[in-house]
Amino acid sequence: MRPSRRAPDELRAVSLERGVVKYAEGSCLVKFGDTHVLVTATLEERLPPWLKGQGRGWVTAEYGMLPRATLERTRREAAAGKQNGRTVEIQRLIGRSLRAIVDLQALGERQITVDCDVLQADGGTRTASITGAWVALADCLGWMKTRNMIKGTVLRDNVAAISCGIYNGIPVLDLDYAEDSEAETDANFVMTGDGRIIEVQGTAEKTPFSQDEFLALMALAQKGVTRLVDLQKMAVA
Amino acid sequence: MRPSRRAPDELRAVSLERGVVKYAEGSCLVKFGDTHVLVTATLEERLPPWLKGQGRGWVTAEYGMLPRATLERTRREAAAGKQNGRTVEIQRLIGRSLRAIVDLQALGERQITVDCDVLQADGGTRTASITGAWVALADCLGWMKTRNMIKGTVLRDNVAAISCGIYNGIPVLDLDYAEDSEAETDANFVMTGDGRIIEVQGTAEKTPFSQDEFLALMALAQKGVTRLVDLQKMAVA
Amino acid sequence: MRPSRRAPDELRAVSLERGVVKYAEGSCLVKFGDTHVLVTATLEERLPPWLKGQGRGWVTAEYGMLPRATLERTRREAAAGKQNGRTVEIQRLIGRSLRAIVDLQALGERQITVDCDVLQADGGTRTASITGAWVALADCLGWMKTRNMIKGTVLRDNVAAISCGIYNGIPVLDLDYAEDSEAETDANFVMTGDGRIIEVQGTAEKTPFSQDEFLALMALAQKGVTRLVDLQKMAVA
Amino acid sequence: MRPSRRAPDELRAVSLERGVVKYAEGSCLVKFGDTHVLVTATLEERLPPWLKGQGRGWVTAEYGMLPRATLERTRREAAAGKQNGRTVEIQRLIGRSLRAIVDLQALGERQITVDCDVLQADGGTRTASITGAWVALADCLGWMKTRNMIKGTVLRDNVAAISCGIYNGIPVLDLDYAEDSEAETDANFVMTGDGRIIEVQGTAEKTPFSQDEFLALMALAQKGVTRLVDLQKMAVA
Amino acid sequence: MRPSRRAPDELRAVSLERGVVKYAEGSCLVKFGDTHVLVTATLEERLPPWLKGQGRGWVTAEYGMLPRATLERTRREAAAGKQNGRTVEIQRLIGRSLRAIVDLQALGERQITVDCDVLQADGGTRTASITGAWVALADCLGWMKTRNMIKGTVLRDNVAAISCGIYNGIPVLDLDYAEDSEAETDANFVMTGDGRIIEVQGTAEKTPFSQDEFLALMALAQKGVTRLVDLQKMAVA
Amino acid sequence: MRPSRRAPDELRAVSLERGVVKYAEGSCLVKFGDTHVLVTATLEERLPPWLKGQGRGWVTAEYGMLPRATLERTRREAAAGKQNGRTVEIQRLIGRSLRAIVDLQALGERQITVDCDVLQADGGTRTASITGAWVALADCLGWMKTRNMIKGTVLRDNVAAISCGIYNGIPVLDLDYAEDSEAETDANFVMTGDGRIIEVQGTAEKTPFSQDEFLALMALAQKGVTRLVDLQKMAVA
Repeated sequence: MRPSRRAPDELRAVSLERGVVKYAEGSCLVKFGDTHVLVTATLEERLPPWLKGQGRGWVTAEYGMLPRATLERTRREAAAGKQNGRTVEIQRLIGRSLRAIVDLQALGERQITVDCDVLQADGGTRTASITGAWVALADCLGWMKTRNMIKGTVLRDNVAAISCGIYNGIPVLDLDYAEDSEAETDANFVMTGDGRIIEVQGTAEKTPFSQDEFLALMALAQKGVTRLVDLQKMAVA
Repeated sequence: MRPSRRAPDELRAVSLERGVVKYAEGSCLVKFGDTHVLVTATLEERLPPWLKGQGRGWVTAEYGMLPRATLERTRREAAAGKQNGRTVEIQRLIGRSLRAIVDLQALGERQITVDCDVLQADGGTRTASITGAWVALADCLGWMKTRNMIKGTVLRDNVAAISCGIYNGIPVLDLDYAEDSEAETDANFVMTGDGRIIEVQGTAEKTPFSQDEFLALMALAQKGVTRLVDLQKMAVA
Repeated sequence: MRPSRRAPDELRAVSLERGVVKYAEGSCLVKFGDTHVLVTATLEERLPPWLKGQGRGWVTAEYGMLPRATLERTRREAAAGKQNGRTVEIQRLIGRSLRAIVDLQALGERQITVDCDVLQADGGTRTASITGAWVALADCLGWMKTRNMIKGTVLRDNVAAISCGIYNGIPVLDLDYAEDSEAETDANFVMTGDGRIIEVQGTAEKTPFSQDEFLALMALAQKGVTRLVDLQKMAVA
Repeated sequence: MRPSRRAPDELRAVSLERGVVKYAEGSCLVKFGDTHVLVTATLEERLPPWLKGQGRGWVTAEYGMLPRATLERTRREAAAGKQNGRTVEIQRLIGRSLRAIVDLQALGERQITVDCDVLQADGGTRTASITGAWVALADCLGWMKTRNMIKGTVLRDNVAAISCGIYNGIPVLDLDYAEDSEAETDANFVMTGDGRIIEVQGTAEKTPFSQDEFLALMALAQKGVTRLVDLQKMAVA
Repeated sequence: MRPSRRAPDELRAVSLERGVVKYAEGSCLVKFGDTHVLVTATLEERLPPWLKGQGRGWVTAEYGMLPRATLERTRREAAAGKQNGRTVEIQRLIGRSLRAIVDLQALGERQITVDCDVLQADGGTRTASITGAWVALADCLGWMKTRNMIKGTVLRDNVAAISCGIYNGIPVLDLDYAEDSEAETDANFVMTGDGRIIEVQGTAEKTPFSQDEFLALMALAQKGVTRLVDLQKMAVA
Repeated sequence: MRPSRRAPDELRAVSLERGVVKYAEGSCLVKFGDTHVLVTATLEERLPPWLKGQGRGWVTAEYGMLPRATLERTRREAAAGKQNGRTVEIQRLIGRSLRAIVDLQALGERQITVDCDVLQADGGTRTASITGAWVALADCLGWMKTRNMIKGTVLRDNVAAISCGIYNGIPVLDLDYAEDSEAETDANFVMTGDGRIIEVQGTAEKTPFSQDEFLALMALAQKGVTRLVDLQKMAVA
């Protein structure tokens, strides 16, 4: 029995609320149960120096967590003077995931920065961030299209992410914090709308896992991502 | 005529929503029109080293702004590796304002950290922060009282803050961004429920102002704070 | 009775010594009693990037304190790797105060940096800094005028600053450290030669103060600034 | 055809040279072809603060690259003042991989720090680091056993890591830099001696990959790790 | 002919003014011509952690330069966020020089921090700093003796420093900036009152120098230090 | 008797191995006994901003130490976020030493960066670095000559460095760590192939030393450098 009484292949209640921030070209407040992330997409007519003059754009991401998003207060990274290792790892993952489904040539020499700020954390902040980021990005590209800044299909596919893990010996989908801190194994899958893999990250938190166990997690993830992609499509419809 | 068509002595629509974050001992989502600040109050059983063993507690504040809270994206302070001067100045002001109405002896050897994170900025983020912080702080102290951690009156009074300025030659209350960026003069008043002053900060943005102009601003501020304190009382009732 | 036996409206001995540093375009060693600040004004033919090409100049300030300017040694900010909040707040105040009386258009596309370094601190370092900075700035502009770099009136007025506070229940002018650390209320006024206000900062150190008390402080400050402006005029005559 | 003319399932020449640094409790110079990493294991009788008094030890890792380990000189992280995102991500991976096969209870309240410094980089520095780190760690634990500091089996299994990817449409093992920069897909597998998975990281560098493609990579990785574990056993025999 | 028209073995006008800062246990404003350094000695009843409990004290130094001490303004190190290489090198030299003539056992478990802040720089700031630091240190030890905090001879000898160099082919003493920037060779000697060497630093700025040239510089330096030590003795008499 | 049983004027076993890193334009693994330093020389077609357009090049150096190069593990500077004072001092010394024997005009508007990374430290890391750096630099210049990038004699002479000190009252050459930590006096000499001095740094670690003692050290150093220069010539022959 999962602490949340969910079935093993059941997602938490997911919501994707668009247009939550007045100024951003795209934004989304994504909730996976008690995990709440505010995502904005910002369009800027400039590129990182190493990318200039190559005729293509860039999508990058930054990630942060409000100090009291967590059970105990976490030190503010701006006060500590640096982003910690986990933050850097997550924001690199979000950026790679989004770039995999964007046609950077078609975007043109511009940068879209996606900011994911966790207002409340109950496990799965990185998967919620990626899932919500797609919505904010889609809105930003829609904003550009309305202004004839881009043509054709810049957004090649959906992208969504979900965690799964082995909890009390059973593969389960979309871990919350209570499960995550107890799970033997934890994996995050970033997948496209057509079921292909963009990123897989599997970690044995306690004991190494077999290849068969990994395949079971992949099957669960596939199910979860299919559902999340449906929700994304409804959100932007 | 003000850009928002408000009367000179009219506040923006103010809302003070409590209990918005699951884990914090106190929290408040404060809105002054399009300025939205998420405030949390965190209780910790530890003190800054220089305060230990003196039989009294401490209230401190930190302030941040999400990158796309603003019209154009602002660089994330955690990525820049330091808090800028404006941030430091504002969080010092919030901390001082709250300490002025808390009985630190009665609080005991504990620290309450108030985090004010701006989700959307349309002028007046520091005054909204202070006004909302009082609500979050009140809830945190209520939480402590329920657990018999404190006795008597720790919270000695209300505290609220409001800006005023001279816009097109006329003293107006509660500047939004459109007014703030054009105002000749800008002043912030932090006042108690009984009308006394905790902090005054007046700055001539363009041309120096006369002492009479300053008195007109102080009268306006008094009116605004009286209204804000009423709203605080309703919120925690 | 004040610790220094001064009358309530009496300034400390003030001196403004010009030309104290060989290389600077303008400089002033300002003393308010035992508070000694070395101020230099440096002219540079460059601007901050965000100001380029707008046809106007900039005046900025930096503030520092020698480690043993204080009763106990303070850690050197260069060794700590950052300027603390108080330093940043003060140097922003000095910069704003000076810009309020300079015609930035007439200055042309150049930057003047005013450095205020406290050699000895006995309260009122920010007010002494601003008062001395005007002298250094005036000399720097004089240096430019001699070389035909500027025309007309770049320096539109004097600017001087003074603190006042309520000490043992009585409003007093120009607090020294002994008074400052005991005062119930502390306010700094930055005013022009013609009596208008550029900045007001009032803080209730212990208990909030009434609006009447604040008016009494403003009257005292007016008196003090008038005297300081006279001294500035004598210094540059 | 691979640039190196290796068969698709062929590792580069691997060597694991022990005892290369005079002072370290364990050390290994690991070479995967032209990728050379110097690994040391340091035993310290102290723990990170958050782990004290829990009766178990800790294994952590740090990673660095000499400036001219790469084709073009890379800026020294010590001079830049921070470790970049990639470095942090890799050293976290190495630490997790080692902790998965160490009995931290049996280690006792001590910390082993594994330093992996890349002398020359030709792709696969993280997999070479993990593979060599096991040897340095084994020697460090042997050093402790000789001194009766630990009992029983602290090192529960081998751990080794290898990359694979899809290059010109074909799954290949142990990518060198020439392949890595061209591969469509890149995955790193960290596995135990008995074939279980500790970490999987798969990234679509260009286009997302199918689940079948991922299974082909996993089979290749299994083959490579089996060979690396044999080499580790020979090295410490 | 030297730019200053001094004889080759002639020092600049040297002055050592004691007691220039109100709070410090010892202080000295040292002038070598237009090079002016404010030195303070601070006594603290605490030690760096690695020195605790060994029954001896410590003398350390910090060095700084006001931004406009130089011909062109130098960026403030506190604003840059770090001390540059030259600063670190100089303050290490000053600390070593002072420790060489202090009986650290006799000092007891205390630390004296000597701060050398350059108000105006015209070459030789490190040698002026060391020479003035001895005076400030002597006064600090005198202050301690008066309070019976130390007994016997803590200050075992004088220490002074001087630069010399080869300018236009001729060995000269006490280089000012005009000479220093043109000299072929530059050497700093730190010597005791009895003529022994504490530190020698010789650098070929342009072309390497012969051992004979070095001996000529050492003879000059001996002469200069003898004179400086006389001046120190007069200053503290 | 020296701990290593060497004669007073005997160097440790010295080796200079060229071409140890695949990508660098020049490289050398230098060993002075158990002190091992990996040196690379990198050619870059860019200059520090302050040197642009002056028709001459630059040679600079960086220095680092692997964490477990030492008896006890040293904290990684990249993790600490800054280079410590000793590192900065050494890399400045290496850079100055090399520039003294390079014709920067003949080098052209390019920069050569020499990286010295200590793999194992047993005293004398800075002298070994300089001695090996000359070899790496010579190879880098040879690489340029082969490509007709430079003409004539860019490398004007050899440069090598050696330490000496007074150990148990006797002047000895090339101190290892056991001697260095016990020596009364420690001096480093950087000399050219023709016996002239580029840098001298002598420090009284315990008691000041006489001028005669210093001359004895200089004679020893001359002997050592002559031998090192012979070894350099053999290495590049």
